[in-house]
Amino acid sequence: MAKKKKYVYFFGGKKAEGKAEMKELLGGKGANLAEMVNIGLPVPAGFTITTEVCTYYFDNKKKYPKELKADVLSALKKVEEKMGAKFGDAKNPLLVSVRSGARASMPGMMDTILNLGLNDKTVQGLIDKTNNPRFAYDSYRRFVQMYGDVVLDLKPADKHSEDPFEVILERKKNQHGFKLDTELSAEHLKELVDEFKAEIKEKTGKTFPENPMDQLWGAIGAVFGSWMNDRAIVYRKLNNIPADWGTAVNVQSMVFGNMGEDSGTGVAFTRDPATGENIFYGEYLFNAQGEDVVAGIRTPHPISELQKDDPIIYKELSNIRAILEKHYKEMMDIEFTIQQGKLWMLQCRVGKRTGFAAIKMAVDMVKQKLITKEDAISRIEPNQLNQLLRPIFDMDEKRKAVDESRLLAKGLNAGPGAASGKIALNASDAEEMAAKGDKVILVRIETSPEDIKGMNASEGILTARGGMTSHAALVARQMGKVCVAGCGSLKIDYKNKTIAVENSNTVLNEGDYISLDGTTGEVIEGKLETKPSEVIQVLISKTMEPEDSAIYDTYASLMKWADNVRRLNVRTNADQPDQSANAIAFGAEGIGLCRTEHMFFGGDRITSVRKMIVSDSLEERKAALEELLPLQRSDFEGIFEVMNGRPVTIRTLDPPLHEFLPHDDKEIAELAEELHISERKLKEKIESLHEFNPMLGFRGCRLGVAYPEITEMQARAIIEAAINVAEKGIKVKPEIMIPLVSTINEFKLQEDIVRSVAKEVMKEKGKKINYLVGTMIELPRAAVTADEIAQRAEFFSFGTNDLTQTTFGLSRDDAGKFLPVYVEREILPADPFEAIDQNGVGQLVDIGTKKGRSTRPDLKVGICGEHGGEPSSVEFCHRTGLNYVSCSPFRIPIARLAAARAVVREMSSKKPVRKSKPKSKKKKTSRRK
Amino acid sequence: MAKKKKYVYFFGGKKAEGKAEMKELLGGKGANLAEMVNIGLPVPAGFTITTEVCTYYFDNKKKYPKELKADVLSALKKVEEKMGAKFGDAKNPLLVSVRSGARASMPGMMDTILNLGLNDKTVQGLIDKTNNPRFAYDSYRRFVQMYGDVVLDLKPADKHSEDPFEVILERKKNQHGFKLDTELSAEHLKELVDEFKAEIKEKTGKTFPENPMDQLWGAIGAVFGSWMNDRAIVYRKLNNIPADWGTAVNVQSMVFGNMGEDSGTGVAFTRDPATGENIFYGEYLFNAQGEDVVAGIRTPHPISELQKDDPIIYKELSNIRAILEKHYKEMMDIEFTIQQGKLWMLQCRVGKRTGFAAIKMAVDMVKQKLITKEDAISRIEPNQLNQLLRPIFDMDEKRKAVDESRLLAKGLNAGPGAASGKIALNASDAEEMAAKGDKVILVRIETSPEDIKGMNASEGILTARGGMTSHAALVARQMGKVCVAGCGSLKIDYKNKTIAVENSNTVLNEGDYISLDGTTGEVIEGKLETKPSEVIQVLISKTMEPEDSAIYDTYASLMKWADNVRRLNVRTNADQPDQSANAIAFGAEGIGLCRTEHMFFGGDRITSVRKMIVSDSLEERKAALEELLPLQRSDFEGIFEVMNGRPVTIRTLDPPLHEFLPHDDKEIAELAEELHISERKLKEKIESLHEFNPMLGFRGCRLGVAYPEITEMQARAIIEAAINVAEKGIKVKPEIMIPLVSTINEFKLQEDIVRSVAKEVMKEKGKKINYLVGTMIELPRAAVTADEIAQRAEFFSFGTNDLTQTTFGLSRDDAGKFLPVYVEREILPADPFEAIDQNGVGQLVDIGTKKGRSTRPDLKVGICGEHGGEPSSVEFCHRTGLNYVSCSPFRIPIARLAAARAVVREMSSKKPVRKSKPKSKKKKTSRRK
Repeated sequence: MAKKKKYVYFFGGKKAEGKAEMKELLGGKGANLAEMVNIGLPVPAGFTITTEVCTYYFDNKKKYPKELKADVLSALKKVEEKMGAKFGDAKNPLLVSVRSGARASMPGMMDTILNLGLNDKTVQGLIDKTNNPRFAYDSYRRFVQMYGDVVLDLKPADKHSEDPFEVILERKKNQHGFKLDTELSAEHLKELVDEFKAEIKEKTGKTFPENPMDQLWGAIGAVFGSWMNDRAIVYRKLNNIPADWGTAVNVQSMVFGNMGEDSGTGVAFTRDPATGENIFYGEYLFNAQGEDVVAGIRTPHPISELQKDDPIIYKELSNIRAILEKHYKEMMDIEFTIQQGKLWMLQCRVGKRTGFAAIKMAVDMVKQKLITKEDAISRIEPNQLNQLLRPIFDMDEKRKAVDESRLLAKGLNAGPGAASGKIALNASDAEEMAAKGDKVILVRIETSPEDIKGMNASEGILTARGGMTSHAALVARQMGKVCVAGCGSLKIDYKNKTIAVENSNTVLNEGDYISLDGTTGEVIEGKLETKPSEVIQVLISKTMEPEDSAIYDTYASLMKWADNVRRLNVRTNADQPDQSANAIAFGAEGIGLCRTEHMFFGGDRITSVRKMIVSDSLEERKAALEELLPLQRSDFEGIFEVMNGRPVTIRTLDPPLHEFLPHDDKEIAELAEELHISERKLKEKIESLHEFNPMLGFRGCRLGVAYPEITEMQARAIIEAAINVAEKGIKVKPEIMIPLVSTINEFKLQEDIVRSVAKEVMKEKGKKINYLVGTMIELPRAAVTADEIAQRAEFFSFGTNDLTQTTFGLSRDDAGKFLPVYVEREILPADPFEAIDQNGVGQLVDIGTKKGRSTRPDLKVGICGEHGGEPSSVEFCHRTGLNYVSCSPFRIPIARLAAARAVVREMSSKKPVRKSKPKSKKKKTSRRK
Repeated sequence: MAKKKKYVYFFGGKKAEGKAEMKELLGGKGANLAEMVNIGLPVPAGFTITTEVCTYYFDNKKKYPKELKADVLSALKKVEEKMGAKFGDAKNPLLVSVRSGARASMPGMMDTILNLGLNDKTVQGLIDKTNNPRFAYDSYRRFVQMYGDVVLDLKPADKHSEDPFEVILERKKNQHGFKLDTELSAEHLKELVDEFKAEIKEKTGKTFPENPMDQLWGAIGAVFGSWMNDRAIVYRKLNNIPADWGTAVNVQSMVFGNMGEDSGTGVAFTRDPATGENIFYGEYLFNAQGEDVVAGIRTPHPISELQKDDPIIYKELSNIRAILEKHYKEMMDIEFTIQQGKLWMLQCRVGKRTGFAAIKMAVDMVKQKLITKEDAISRIEPNQLNQLLRPIFDMDEKRKAVDESRLLAKGLNAGPGAASGKIALNASDAEEMAAKGDKVILVRIETSPEDIKGMNASEGILTARGGMTSHAALVARQMGKVCVAGCGSLKIDYKNKTIAVENSNTVLNEGDYISLDGTTGEVIEGKLETKPSEVIQVLISKTMEPEDSAIYDTYASLMKWADNVRRLNVRTNADQPDQSANAIAFGAEGIGLCRTEHMFFGGDRITSVRKMIVSDSLEERKAALEELLPLQRSDFEGIFEVMNGRPVTIRTLDPPLHEFLPHDDKEIAELAEELHISERKLKEKIESLHEFNPMLGFRGCRLGVAYPEITEMQARAIIEAAINVAEKGIKVKPEIMIPLVSTINEFKLQEDIVRSVAKEVMKEKGKKINYLVGTMIELPRAAVTADEIAQRAEFFSFGTNDLTQTTFGLSRDDAGKFLPVYVEREILPADPFEAIDQNGVGQLVDIGTKKGRSTRPDLKVGICGEHGGEPSSVEFCHRTGLNYVSCSPFRIPIARLAAARAVVREMSSKKPVRKSKPKSKKKKTSRRK
């Protein structure tokens, strides 16, 4: 037979049977109560019934293990000894609380019972001890009410009915013409106890148990039972908490902070949870119970005032604060009660915090040598860095706006940050308004490459359609613009230049002020002030010196540690010199994706592009390309100079040609005139370029295969630019990337063009430079034939946006109709355009990488989809053995930190202490069950 | 040192050093000449210089192996002995031909020299032997001309210049006022010999060699050299013939069919190459050379007349015919010459034939016990069966139409067969015209599901856009309609109801006659008569009894043998009872894909479908579905009855909903009225369903996930129908298939609906039936996570149309812009929508099958894309271990034969004779280099 199981763990005095590491068995609350006892903090004695009892209880038709009764009695005895009181004693009664406590925090989901042990006899003991009959009877009536509800199941008949106890309470007040509960006397409360008991009997047929032991077992059963209540089940489902974890039950002596002016209660954090500052932060109230602090009826005092009000207790608490931080090496959230001058600790747990605070505290703790740099790295969620980077609204101002019902709608938080400006409904208006000095928010049903200049001129972009990787979202993030996308409840009327809000009378006009919180997706009517973060002021706008900003110092320290740890390189997606410069400021080690087509929209070059597209002959097309050559070349020169020796991956033309042509009659007429062709001919051309599924159409290298002269021009522009810049003594590392390859033959054709142009240019210029020719792997076919493609391609870059679209058969522009529902209903664990779908798309990345390296062992492999800046995807890339990720400039710090976290996680999973197996290849791509 | 290589193979008399199996070394011609000698046929003696010499020649700067000279001399000596003549002898000269002969036939690509050995002395010997100076000098001047061109390289200056020898010849005729070459006398021809020689000397500086040995080596070098001429290189590229195969050179004694009335020449086939009939088929001319038969200057006589003209030679030839067929077990194509009463065989090779003849001959030869059934199966290309199935044009009538320049255009041969009818430019006109009794050809820019009824009413479908698996092509093949798709040179003007032809003045109007040859893709102006094939008359139209048709008998024999051999099952894609009945007549073993949405267009049900789509509430939607339920149920009942116990796989609703809604203003107005809703609301609904990439949008199981009530209705219709039919004592095997699954969770949701509805219906009806629930694997993600999906799915059916689109990132509707170029330029070996892309898409099919079976070893796996009827794809499915293929009814015989051929090929690749390794798993999916 197995060793007898221990079901009950005592804590109290100087020694507990449990400890912090036993969270799985004792729950978070129980484990931390035990731990506090062990490190010498004053904790009211009690005991924890383990989560195994919970599991046993549900596996055995709500029966307990035989041994439990004796174990509980024995633990209760120890509690009586430590607290000097007796359970059920009429003179000196021990009162207890019975609380749930699961492995993971499930706030408010399960039941709690306080003041247990009170009955008609023991209430007298409490009166005697406190000299406060009103307090005693109020405690008693609350206990009966709580017990009646939780244990004896007297609840409102349905969700529209009132609480039966509240009905009686109201009646009592009405009888006496009282408005407040506090007007009730001890006698009234005593009457209520009896009336409550009678109501329970009448409605449920059950008798309120006078015997404290019966009360205790009833409460234990009810708390275990609450593990399976509807709320708890739903909460677990939402938070992926398995039902078989179970909850523990904590039975702990009651202490009271409302026993007079030498009593009190408070909550505190060992550091400021909002700013992260290393100050003792919290609130307290004298002569009050915990509820009073939380409920906000009386205004509590800041903890600093306690130093004046009660210097001894304050010193004791400060001491405890220091002990806790030293012991837990974390910012802790504590609850305490002072009962007649004695301090008791009721709870401690790791405190919640803002991203900002998380970063500051982690960095400070490293500097205090409390934790290692690796600990700091693993404590900060990469996305929390956003709070250091993005412009922000003043919180008070925003709250005011919401209070004034100016919150119009909520969309996808596609580009974090805060922006406020005047509404423009098309790109050219946005440009004009910005030129006049207005701050502009560009509002579109959706955006297209034609809108780029207008987007660049705007503070923020708001769209009614499109997801997290829609054109608007993608470009906004790359530009560092605020963006709220896919805000479907806005009805945008281009003709009347209005925005109507669904289910509301609000109609905004062009030129009205609107504000976007891209971090939350909120759209707010009117103007709100914003300001850039200090980190941005130092790195980008250079309006602040590094040494003047403590926040920047924190950021820089963390980034330095992350860079020392990570192995994955981080590049950026950028196609302008200024973007590239920003990216370097954020730590980019190269450009992973320079989209040449974005350059096609700058200045007047769009006209040359359009000329090329409508050309009927090779000669015409070449003439138009000839006009583009010097423009592209100078773009590349600018980028090469800024990147100063870092690798620059340039993708040849990718989007379908119709994206470059206008689609409304007026613009078509204008263009026809500009190009000296008939409107009819232009319309025919546009019509002939129409595609049913442009995603799967004539784009990517298919363009270069059909029109080799385009690839020729682009290769020439790149190599000429590289030589020109190299001649200034600046190193250049161009990497030319062929998009949308599905077979080695396409790649060969394009590679041959690039190499022959490069040879020609180098001969003309009499100077050699090194360059690579590689490809995007963004189609499933490319992934499964990567061994062939690697025969020629010198590098791979996974285009996981398109790879996700094709692997799922899912257009990101159309997915808005059903993808949110899929994520909500957990058909998919997350939006696969946000976090890489490791199980499906990830398998293809893994296959492509392995097959590619089977042909070319030193193949450089990166990723340049939007996933390159998403933490879980970055970690996946690290595990899969990629060389780099590439993301928009503003996500670089996030990627750097995520890459470092991947290493730290890997290290900790390899530590012998943990029993988890080293990650096998299979595991890497294995499914989420 | 290695054994001395044999470079020269003698043939002649009764024994040759080579044989038929030595094609790689001796080329096809040389090997067959040797073989004919070995089986005792009279062949003018000669020798073959091996292909290895060719390779050596090009590897060694056009030098020969040292030994070659002696070997050639020694072989030549044997030829002299056998032929009783001497090379270069003035009295009794041996003349030879020098011809190329590669492993694969490359007709006309390389050079040939005849009459070699003639010079000013030996010409006299020829005169003496023939008593015909004019013949001798004509032979001589032809030799000099040929030699000057081929060996001494005197060619026209450029492609616009005249042949220098022809210039001299013309001058000579003009001098004498002659019009025809035949008017020139022996003396004139003798003069020409000298003038030709002088021209060669003047233009090339080279002297015509009088020495026959010099002539011989010059000719050998020229023939080897011609292996690398431009024409040959291009031909090899087009036909995938490797350059390192090389050509052999055949040096053979000349014989002459023009030595008088006891001489002659002819070509023949051992059976009729057009009909396959077992008769001796060919032509001959007395006193003529081979060129004369081919050139058509004199009309040759049918070989049957030879029996009268020269019974001895005829008997000898008939005997040779029998020997050849018995020996080669094939229909052979022969060339012969009679020189002064003696028959000589000059060539034999396997004869080319029509598909029709190929089938008849193979079946006849099995019946004659010449070959095995497996041989017959492997000899017939499955697509050749089309010639037995499709209606056809009368060839003479068609040729006449082409001669009259009525061939308008050529498109994709998307639906084989012949059709002629009046042009209709939309589906409803087509229906109206057909109702009036007209034969109709529906001509559309492209078709959509709305056109189904019009397509069904038409004889054939012609589209300007779309590929081999466009909607038009797919539906046409399933209906057995003739279809020419993607005929881009037609400009279809719906408004004016005209069809203009690019680069032509032809404009056709609605109602004009047009004819389609769907087997070739030709579009012909005017009316051409068609007739159904005998096989169709027996199987489908039942206008002929099986025993009355020899052609049907041939077909049925072949199919029976194929069925006995094959292991892969063959099902059909059908969604109507009559289609299903046809499919069974063609041998279908079940339905692999019943597209329920096709049923949505029949009769008035489209109104109910539209009602459902525009519904605002669940209640409205359910009410509309309620109307559809009995209609779908009766459809399924009809199919289950016809299929009579065979499995029927029914796919739940797949296409995006906007496909069911009208798109032009008039139809929208009509529909709005019909549905009693405002036009504005209907337009909004249509607008809201618009998708950028419908292929990747809201379709497949995504519909059923969003609107479970649709799946509920369909499941109910299927199960109710199954029970109703089962109650009549007919077996039913429904297999319900969920489309476009990308994750197990989607499948689970849909499966749960189907199972709970099925349970409910069976309870209601008090009867149980067996059914399966499975899924399509048509997305890369489904393939790579097939192990998960197979936890629940009871069968897989690969939807290789969509899988090809997503794996390649290629919309079949848009691919027309570049895919033809890809195939033409060999970027892709074939249109991946026609023949499955084994290397890319095939890998995913393989991965999906293996992963699926890793979870569920007995998983039934099929394929229901259009590839299911394409021979190379069927073979791939066999190798990959699929259980069945499913294709349109008219392709079933093709799939049956292809499946049998896969087995035969597998068997022969396992025979120990061949040294090829057994196909490893890797090989199955390995690349094509």
